[in-house]
Amino acid sequence: MNKTILLNNRPKGKPQESDFKFINEATPEVKSGEVLLKTKYVSVDPYMRGRMSDAESYVPPFQLNKPVESGIIAEIVESKNGSFSKGDFVSGMLDWKEYQTNDGKNLLKVDGEKAPLSAYLGVIGMTGLTAYHGLTEIGKLKEGETIVVSGAAGAVGSIVGQIGKILGCRVIGIAGTDEKGEMLKSKFGFDATINYKTTEDMTKAIADAAPNGVDVYYDNVGGTISDGVHANINSFGRIVVCGAISLYNSTSMPTGPRVEPFLIKKSVLMQGFIVSNFADKFSEGMDKLSQWLKAEKLDFSETIVEGFDNIPNAFINLFDGKNKGKMIVKV
Amino acid sequence: MNKTILLNNRPKGKPQESDFKFINEATPEVKSGEVLLKTKYVSVDPYMRGRMSDAESYVPPFQLNKPVESGIIAEIVESKNGSFSKGDFVSGMLDWKEYQTNDGKNLLKVDGEKAPLSAYLGVIGMTGLTAYHGLTEIGKLKEGETIVVSGAAGAVGSIVGQIGKILGCRVIGIAGTDEKGEMLKSKFGFDATINYKTTEDMTKAIADAAPNGVDVYYDNVGGTISDGVHANINSFGRIVVCGAISLYNSTSMPTGPRVEPFLIKKSVLMQGFIVSNFADKFSEGMDKLSQWLKAEKLDFSETIVEGFDNIPNAFINLFDGKNKGKMIVKV
Repeated sequence: MNKTILLNNRPKGKPQESDFKFINEATPEVKSGEVLLKTKYVSVDPYMRGRMSDAESYVPPFQLNKPVESGIIAEIVESKNGSFSKGDFVSGMLDWKEYQTNDGKNLLKVDGEKAPLSAYLGVIGMTGLTAYHGLTEIGKLKEGETIVVSGAAGAVGSIVGQIGKILGCRVIGIAGTDEKGEMLKSKFGFDATINYKTTEDMTKAIADAAPNGVDVYYDNVGGTISDGVHANINSFGRIVVCGAISLYNSTSMPTGPRVEPFLIKKSVLMQGFIVSNFADKFSEGMDKLSQWLKAEKLDFSETIVEGFDNIPNAFINLFDGKNKGKMIVKV
Repeated sequence: MNKTILLNNRPKGKPQESDFKFINEATPEVKSGEVLLKTKYVSVDPYMRGRMSDAESYVPPFQLNKPVESGIIAEIVESKNGSFSKGDFVSGMLDWKEYQTNDGKNLLKVDGEKAPLSAYLGVIGMTGLTAYHGLTEIGKLKEGETIVVSGAAGAVGSIVGQIGKILGCRVIGIAGTDEKGEMLKSKFGFDATINYKTTEDMTKAIADAAPNGVDVYYDNVGGTISDGVHANINSFGRIVVCGAISLYNSTSMPTGPRVEPFLIKKSVLMQGFIVSNFADKFSEGMDKLSQWLKAEKLDFSETIVEGFDNIPNAFINLFDGKNKGKMIVKV
């Protein structure tokens, strides 16, 4: 039998375990041209909260009573497709199932000799590409500038900060515990960190950490944390709007200071994106990230949770900041 | 004697006549290399409200007890500068004075035969360039798209809408009276207009006027009007943040819905600017605007107020929407 996790309810506020349902299905038969995949590593990511809502978007919402999908590393356990052999590992957007068949069209072979398999979900996968392309294409970060990253100890944030250092910038990270802040400095080379939970005046804290103001703000969280960064943005600043985890579970329309006055006064750009906007540049991004990883200029951290049954909980725990770096479930 | 208008107080909320002070000075003596200018047309513009505040910005604030400055067309009445002759007309950022001397470095000769002198403050001056460069450089408006313009009957808005039509787009204007709406359709060719003062549900009104959604929003007003447009923005939409006249006189921090959720969900860009950001492209913009004006593809409207003494009042009246098109004082 083959365990599968369905979306049971559209979450109201913070997702609950009861929003997911486990069922058992027969393991599917492999047709000609298909492969049978065994799930090995499952990526859980904040952006998935958006797909659990019914709201119109150009990433289609998850369907109720259908399997949830996310980035997955799987092993080919049977192949009737000439492009793949038994024992290969692949990466793809796949269902939360222990086993599934696939026609191989959207699978990418990954090599566990070159990097740990889980890294293909993180630093050299969509997470790394989200950091790299957001920072280069939208942030247009230049040597000598100051960048602030929120959600800095998260999967994307910790890579953003390291790329900032590689590019020769002053990097300031915002995170939710002192322990995370210490890790950002010691492991990832951040210049300064701010614990937003113990900081009363974010505007002043950012001003102190960024004496030359903020040129690029890579925002993963939104909300009042961001208000303090906006207040310190420089003329011609760029705000890379990657995520808004502080707002995703809000059950009413979140409000805050209007942005137009500072956007005008300082000629600031604010741009939202999803990583697939830059799909035509992924090979450039992959090359850079792999080079930096190989050269040990880029490090990464993972929070690995064990067991297929723990996938929903690992996802839910993202919203309490229980992860350091990339949250991954090992099956 | 030579009348001069000084900034007397930094306005709190809506500017008052008492925020300005008239003084009489001796007419200055013309030194070698200088010209003596007689003010003919004075531009009053919403963005000047920002310069009346003390807040830090990269356009320096007006100084208290110093003359206010704005775009002015002046006649050369005496010249000790080889580049200018008596009787020439020039455009420049000049003081609110009946007469002033100038070294000529930042003056641009204008030709009253080619276009009415006042047009050099408007459709083929900074106003037209603000519309043109905001729309092309930030909005990247393409044929067949839908554009919404707020403050549509204002100086910039009415030009934005016409450029939208020239580029083959569906153009929707938001203005504050039915009369303005009718003018936008009959004189400037807008496809649809919305009177925000008599519209209860802006989100629905925009949805009705823009059945294919909004690709570009050229925003001159900010506030609740903009909320209704944001709710209808398309994926990969561009919001050109030119002005926020509805917020300029606010005495507290204006608040509203946070923008990050829709910026992310729809990969939307929002960018503030001032026209001087595009100074290196002004000659291209001037060429286009002049060609369109000559070919009668571009029309313009002006509200001309007579008399030097009425300059402050003309400026104040901008905030009550008393102008149609460009507000200009003829001296």
